[in-house]
Amino acid sequence: MTDRSPYQNGVVQPLLTDLYQITMAYAYWKNNKKDDIAVFDLFFRKNPFHGEFTIFAGVEECIKFLENFKFTDQDISYLKTVLPGVDERFFDYLKAVSAKDLKVYFIDEGLVVFPKVPLITVEGPLPIAQLLETTLLNLVNYASLVATNAARFRLASGPNTTLLEFGLRRAQGPDGGLSASRYCFMGGFDGTSNVLAGKLFDIPVKGTHAHAFVTSFAGISELNGHHMLPFRGGSGKTADIVELSLKWLDTISSHLDFIVEETNKGELAAFIAYAISFPEGFLVLVDTYDVLRSGIPNFCAVALSLHEIGYQAKGIRLDSGDLAYLSNKVRNMFTLVANKMGIPWFESLSIVASNDINEETITSLNQQGHSINSYGIGTHLVTCQKQPALGCVYKLVAINGDPRIKLSEDVNKVTIPGKKNIYRLYGADGTILVDVLMSASEQSPEEGKRLLIRNPFIASKRAFVCPTKVEVLLKLYWDKGQVRYSLPSLRELKERTCKSISCLREDHKRQLNPTPYKVSVSDELYNFMHEIWLSNQPIGELA
Amino acid sequence: MTDRSPYQNGVVQPLLTDLYQITMAYAYWKNNKKDDIAVFDLFFRKNPFHGEFTIFAGVEECIKFLENFKFTDQDISYLKTVLPGVDERFFDYLKAVSAKDLKVYFIDEGLVVFPKVPLITVEGPLPIAQLLETTLLNLVNYASLVATNAARFRLASGPNTTLLEFGLRRAQGPDGGLSASRYCFMGGFDGTSNVLAGKLFDIPVKGTHAHAFVTSFAGISELNGHHMLPFRGGSGKTADIVELSLKWLDTISSHLDFIVEETNKGELAAFIAYAISFPEGFLVLVDTYDVLRSGIPNFCAVALSLHEIGYQAKGIRLDSGDLAYLSNKVRNMFTLVANKMGIPWFESLSIVASNDINEETITSLNQQGHSINSYGIGTHLVTCQKQPALGCVYKLVAINGDPRIKLSEDVNKVTIPGKKNIYRLYGADGTILVDVLMSASEQSPEEGKRLLIRNPFIASKRAFVCPTKVEVLLKLYWDKGQVRYSLPSLRELKERTCKSISCLREDHKRQLNPTPYKVSVSDELYNFMHEIWLSNQPIGELA
Repeated sequence: MTDRSPYQNGVVQPLLTDLYQITMAYAYWKNNKKDDIAVFDLFFRKNPFHGEFTIFAGVEECIKFLENFKFTDQDISYLKTVLPGVDERFFDYLKAVSAKDLKVYFIDEGLVVFPKVPLITVEGPLPIAQLLETTLLNLVNYASLVATNAARFRLASGPNTTLLEFGLRRAQGPDGGLSASRYCFMGGFDGTSNVLAGKLFDIPVKGTHAHAFVTSFAGISELNGHHMLPFRGGSGKTADIVELSLKWLDTISSHLDFIVEETNKGELAAFIAYAISFPEGFLVLVDTYDVLRSGIPNFCAVALSLHEIGYQAKGIRLDSGDLAYLSNKVRNMFTLVANKMGIPWFESLSIVASNDINEETITSLNQQGHSINSYGIGTHLVTCQKQPALGCVYKLVAINGDPRIKLSEDVNKVTIPGKKNIYRLYGADGTILVDVLMSASEQSPEEGKRLLIRNPFIASKRAFVCPTKVEVLLKLYWDKGQVRYSLPSLRELKERTCKSISCLREDHKRQLNPTPYKVSVSDELYNFMHEIWLSNQPIGELA
Repeated sequence: MTDRSPYQNGVVQPLLTDLYQITMAYAYWKNNKKDDIAVFDLFFRKNPFHGEFTIFAGVEECIKFLENFKFTDQDISYLKTVLPGVDERFFDYLKAVSAKDLKVYFIDEGLVVFPKVPLITVEGPLPIAQLLETTLLNLVNYASLVATNAARFRLASGPNTTLLEFGLRRAQGPDGGLSASRYCFMGGFDGTSNVLAGKLFDIPVKGTHAHAFVTSFAGISELNGHHMLPFRGGSGKTADIVELSLKWLDTISSHLDFIVEETNKGELAAFIAYAISFPEGFLVLVDTYDVLRSGIPNFCAVALSLHEIGYQAKGIRLDSGDLAYLSNKVRNMFTLVANKMGIPWFESLSIVASNDINEETITSLNQQGHSINSYGIGTHLVTCQKQPALGCVYKLVAINGDPRIKLSEDVNKVTIPGKKNIYRLYGADGTILVDVLMSASEQSPEEGKRLLIRNPFIASKRAFVCPTKVEVLLKLYWDKGQVRYSLPSLRELKERTCKSISCLREDHKRQLNPTPYKVSVSDELYNFMHEIWLSNQPIGELA
């Protein structure tokens, strides 16, 4: 547990909740139900982004919330103003409440998860378990949503593309930006532009410069006579990088088919200034004026100058235009320079793309063919444009050992009653076959032994399954104040996520019409559930 | 300024930025540009939600950020690990940087604003002005987006509907939830379910109970013999509320056409428990089992019992089903009870609706006809489903007094160069006519005097305008460390927002195909801008 991030947003506290949790707690207390033992399941009903899987995230934050769950005197004073007429003794009770009376089960953070499977099960005194609802939902919903989004971008772009999260400026608030950086890294990204996220969560931070840097230079004269750059290796020799760059610009103009007079000299000055500052990390934005007639010529001129004094440039970034066309065109120009000048590495300079990219853009670029090595992705990644919320819910499934069901006109919204165990069954090829929900009292499935599983809602859908491996999904992480499992570092979570996704069959992961993963119940749980359902549902009357 | 909220998320700090701001600052410093005086404009290019207006929000947070803008030793240590090879003296410079050298102009928080108009103009040393970019964008983008969304819900629902924000559980992180509560209140909502937001920002908090409260009771016996409720007024007399409720259930069954045996007795117990806890605030969720055959009968029985001992019930909440049909049906049942029992107020009990409501749902309900008094709105409001990000940008427009322009293939992305003043011109009827951008050196428009205004991009679009009132929009809020204007309380901002929207012509506000509001430039700025544009844009060659 030494790897846990020390950070948690200070606003994660018991008052970060809906008022109705407090009013309900009061009504439970007032009606002598404070010692009733409740079981709540936290789950979602539908995978996001028209996909068929979700990455579960937010466990560490939930555990920290449980550890710190305590109403302060100031909280109580405020609540008294909001709830006049409430029995004073309730506030004494509330003041003493902690998560020490609860057992909380979690699925491991970073695993792929599916609809209707409890991600968290909370068991304990009814008012206390109730009071956790909103905060747990808040901590799980966005974390899981954005981790899933990141994983989808990773699947779309393939394993060899560098993915950078650039979303802070468009995120839904400061903390939205931080969470995005953290959970995108976990979901499969390689780094972030967000410096604070880098510091707090040990994520690689990346970035070069913006258009403003380029437009801040109007011409070479604005370098203020600052032209000299030392040769790499510390020989003490220096070179006039302006002189070199102007020479190279001239040299390559015929090869790259541009007119020297038409390249923007402010842009050239900016690139030189950047090279002087970061000779080892020369990667610049080339679309401020005109990519092919100014940006790339200027870049090549400076990169060749750097080469002459021992440095190897990194590459360029495109932030507008037709990314497939431009990246291919740029790659051709790099190849041409590589060949003409006999500098092989010039061919494989990095091309970063970063203009309003979403999952579909990447797929479309792949179909068209492109030469991009890396994407910088902001808005659509962090705000989850395609579906900005994951609909996790928190439902009461048992009280004092009696199962409870929430009915609905919409069958999909009916809850699966009772305290349950969840098992993930693996096939012989190592892929996961099915998640099975079973009553807590049932024996767990056994490897190599046939098991009858059922669709929870459709009687005719039944199957036998014979697992090669059985994994217990819900684990007792929080045992009345004790944390029973270690919480991995973010890098470990990233590996776990990657591994979990790799166990999922390809057809569940594809972008278009993926096959739904089967979530099933045991025969016993099926019968139990439907008995309770019928006993709670009055027979309708058509009128 | 005594009204300012003391709260600011601790993560709002100089490191909450993109790494490239730091690398650029270094390159400016390294190339002797640290004392260049830059002007940056922060603006957006397109109103959100297919609308034609935006509410500007986040000013107070930006000011607090400016006040606290200071790199700590710990920040510097971290940056050194991220940027090896950077000249040590730069970090000494960075350590000394503050916002005290800047002038920052803001439009008043809460005003309606439009594309291309600078909402913030930052003027000062290039590296320092640059370093603010990401954080300012982050603080303005979501705040303005969600305030605008709230304002649109208010316009759709009309002035007499109570609007409550219920979004915490689905918000993009803890802070997303808090910001949503704050800026939705400003944008036109009446309250929130978010207790911490209530405490921090003095927003009315609302809430009753969830389905879990209802399902936690299986029958009357679970009231544990707790049946007595004192008469209102402190006479000391008490009544058995279970006995009363069962009596009333029987009495009204023939009027409301339900079967007493089919009403859910667990639900009745839950309602009684809630009434015992909150006799003065009896508002319950009626759709756990069956709205018309169980929820409403049980509600009416308990409400009539409360009436018998002096209390007036508040109403019901619907969280599923056909809200138009159900709300009308429920209103009819209330009217029937009001008439049969001679209790006039029963007819006007509150009907709250809260199932996945968005702007279109409200419009559609209005078209169908409904009987809803209040909406509780979560997911779509706070995550801004229709468009989860506002695309504010931060562009360099001048340096050392020289104008700078950012060109683009997309004309809409070309920036308007130079330091500017912004004026809002009003017509005789008090509505706003046009926002005009003028060069900082120009004389301001005068009331009653004709002014030539131009579309910034289309030469043929010109008009004369004669304003009745002229308002200066960009104000010097932050004058080198001094805050020159008071920052209103949240309630004052709410009033300002409401007033500002009321000055906007109806056709700009309508949901379907609203008329674009005109943002114009003066003739002088038009000519100035196009001269610079042409001098920076090479003539293309068709090939």
